[in-house]
Amino acid sequence: MPRMIVTYRVRSDAAAIGARAAAIAVEQSVEMPVTAISDETVLKDIVGEAIGIRETGSGVYDVNIALSTATMGNDPGQLLNMLFGNSSLQETVRLVDAELSDATIGLFGGPRHGIEGLRRRCGAAGRALTCSALKPQGLSPAGLADIAYELALGGIDFIKDDHGLADQAYSPFAGRVEACAGAVRRANRETGFRTHYAPNISGDLDAMREQLSLAAAEGVDTALIEPMICGVSNFHRLVKDFPAIAFIAHPAMAGPSHIAPPLLLGKLFRLFGADVTVYPNYGGRFSYSKETCLRIAEEARRPCGNLKPCLPAPAGGMTLDRVPELLDFYGKDTMLLIGGSLLAAKDRLRQETSAFVSRAASYFQG
Amino acid sequence: MPRMIVTYRVRSDAAAIGARAAAIAVEQSVEMPVTAISDETVLKDIVGEAIGIRETGSGVYDVNIALSTATMGNDPGQLLNMLFGNSSLQETVRLVDAELSDATIGLFGGPRHGIEGLRRRCGAAGRALTCSALKPQGLSPAGLADIAYELALGGIDFIKDDHGLADQAYSPFAGRVEACAGAVRRANRETGFRTHYAPNISGDLDAMREQLSLAAAEGVDTALIEPMICGVSNFHRLVKDFPAIAFIAHPAMAGPSHIAPPLLLGKLFRLFGADVTVYPNYGGRFSYSKETCLRIAEEARRPCGNLKPCLPAPAGGMTLDRVPELLDFYGKDTMLLIGGSLLAAKDRLRQETSAFVSRAASYFQG
Repeated sequence: MPRMIVTYRVRSDAAAIGARAAAIAVEQSVEMPVTAISDETVLKDIVGEAIGIRETGSGVYDVNIALSTATMGNDPGQLLNMLFGNSSLQETVRLVDAELSDATIGLFGGPRHGIEGLRRRCGAAGRALTCSALKPQGLSPAGLADIAYELALGGIDFIKDDHGLADQAYSPFAGRVEACAGAVRRANRETGFRTHYAPNISGDLDAMREQLSLAAAEGVDTALIEPMICGVSNFHRLVKDFPAIAFIAHPAMAGPSHIAPPLLLGKLFRLFGADVTVYPNYGGRFSYSKETCLRIAEEARRPCGNLKPCLPAPAGGMTLDRVPELLDFYGKDTMLLIGGSLLAAKDRLRQETSAFVSRAASYFQG
Repeated sequence: MPRMIVTYRVRSDAAAIGARAAAIAVEQSVEMPVTAISDETVLKDIVGEAIGIRETGSGVYDVNIALSTATMGNDPGQLLNMLFGNSSLQETVRLVDAELSDATIGLFGGPRHGIEGLRRRCGAAGRALTCSALKPQGLSPAGLADIAYELALGGIDFIKDDHGLADQAYSPFAGRVEACAGAVRRANRETGFRTHYAPNISGDLDAMREQLSLAAAEGVDTALIEPMICGVSNFHRLVKDFPAIAFIAHPAMAGPSHIAPPLLLGKLFRLFGADVTVYPNYGGRFSYSKETCLRIAEEARRPCGNLKPCLPAPAGGMTLDRVPELLDFYGKDTMLLIGGSLLAAKDRLRQETSAFVSRAASYFQG
C-alpha cells in the first residue's frame, strides 16, 4: 500500500527520541496502542512507521515517518489532519515536509492558471507582476473604489482587498465589489491597462460561493482567500467549482511555524489550487527569515508533477525602495505586493503606483 | 462604536513593548500606517487601540487591545481573522483572551443542547458522562461496528469515531455509519441502555452536510467535528442548519498554544456551538498543564450570557484507573473519554466498558 514520507522536527533528549518518533507514527495513524490491534491489514498497511531519525541541532531531530496515503481519503482537510491534526497540539513537534505522491498531486491538481496564466491575463511577459491592497478597513465601498481607481490609473496588475475586508456593515461584499470592480473597469477603459480587482471572500462555503458568483457577474476573475480560516477543503472545492477564477491565498491564521511555511504556504496551498501565495517577507513587519522566504518561493514555483507553478507574493510592510532588492532575490516570477506604504502617498497615489509599476517593468530589461 | 477587549501575550524588551502593542492594534484592525489614514470615522471607530500593558513575567507582557466589533462582520471565521489572522504569523505573539460582548454572544448563540440536553438524551442525571472512540483507522465498517456493539453493550453513553475516520476507501462514511449506528441500535434494544454513536464528519461543507443528513437518517443525533480543519464558519453553519444534532468539537489542528487553549477550545468553540469540547488532558500523551486543562473546562462551563454550558471532555491517553482523579478534579459536569486503553481489553471490551461506566456512575453517589 502506498506510503507518504513525512518529516517532523522534534525537540527531545537523545534517549527519548526513538520512542517519540514511534509515538508520532502512531498518533498520526491509528492513534491507539499498537499492541491492542489484532487486524493484520491494519498493522501492515495503516500503522505509521518511523523510518529515519537524524539530529539536526542540539536536542533537535528530524524524524521521517511513512504514513499510509489511504488514510488521507482524497480530501485536503483530511490530508492536513493525518499529517498533523493531533501532533499540532504538541509544543515540541513541528511539521516540516511531506513528499507528495503522483497520485496525490494528480488528485488535487494545483493552480488552474499558474504563473503563465496570470501573465497572459495581464499582458505581462518577462517581468514581475505588481499588486496593491485596498485599505483601510472601515471605509465605505465608495471610499475603497476611489483608491482602486487611482491604483488602476497607475497601471498596477492586481488590486486585492485587504484580507480584513469581509462582509461588514460599513462595506458589504456586494456593494464593495460592484463599486471597486466598476472603478477598475472604468480606469482600464481610460488607460488601456489591464488591472485586475481581487475581492476577499470569507464566511462559510455557501457565503463564499455566493460572493464568487456575484464577483464573476461583475467581471471579476481573481479572488483573495484565507485557506486556514475557511478550511482547505472548502478552498479546494471553490478552486474546482470556479475554474475561471484565479485564487490568491493569504496566510492568515497559518500560525508562526508549527507547520513549516514552505510546506504550508508553498507546497500545500499550491497543491490545493493557489495561483498566488502571499506570505510575510523578511525585513518587513514579520519575522520569517530570508531562507524561509526563499524556500516558500521555491516550493511555489519548482517543477512538481504536472502542477502549474504558483506565484510567490512576498508582502507585509514592503516599500518601493526595496523593489530592486526583492527582484534580485526572487527573480521575475514574483508578485510584488506593496500595500500601506503606497497608500501613504495619498494624493499622489496614482503617481507613486506608476513609479512602482515602471520600476518593476523595467528591471529585467536593463 | 462597540469595542472588544482582546489580550495578547507578547515577548519583548521593555523598551519596545509600547511600540509592539501599538503595532498589534494596527495589524489586527486597519493593517496600514495610521498616518496614511485621513478618514475621521476610521480613525475614531475602526483603528485598534492599545489600552493596557502589564508585565507578567520576565520579558513577557499582556497587552490589552480594544478592537472594533464592527470589523467582525457577524462571521466566526472573520472573528478569528480580526482577533489573530496576521498576528498568528508572529513567533512572539500569543492570543490569550477576548471579552465577548452580549451582541456577539447573542449572535452565535453557543451550544444548542449543552450539558443538560446531553444528560437528558442519555438519562444521565448527577453523574459524569462516558465516551469511547472507534479505532483503529483501517478497519472495515463491519470491524468498527463490532467494536461499537461491544462498547454499547457495556452501557457507555457516547461512542465517537476516531477523529482520523473520514471517508476513506476502506471505511466509507455511508457504510460506516450504517453499520455502526445499526450495531448501537441493536445493543440498545438488547440492554435498555441509551448509547449514542457520534460519527466524525469531514471534508467541505457540502460533504459534511451530506454526511449529517445521512447520519440523521440512521437515527444519529450526535457528531464529531474538527472546527480548525473545516473552518469555524462552516462548523457554525452546521450548528445552525442541524439543530437536532449535538456537536462534539475535536481540537485537531488547533496548534500548541499560540491561541490559548481555554480561549479557543473552551470559550470560542462553545460560542460557535460545541456541546462537548474534547481536549488533551494533563498527564496523558500531550503536554497541556493541569491549570490549562482546568481553565478550558471552566471556560466551557461557566455562566456566559444566555449560552448553555458545554461539556469538557479531557482525553488523549486516559485510563480507567484515573477515573476517580479526573472526577475529583473536574466534577460531574464532565465527559470522561477513554479510547485506546479500553480497546486494549480486546475480548473483554464489554466488561471493561461496564467497569468504566459503573465507576463513573457510582462516584458521586458515595
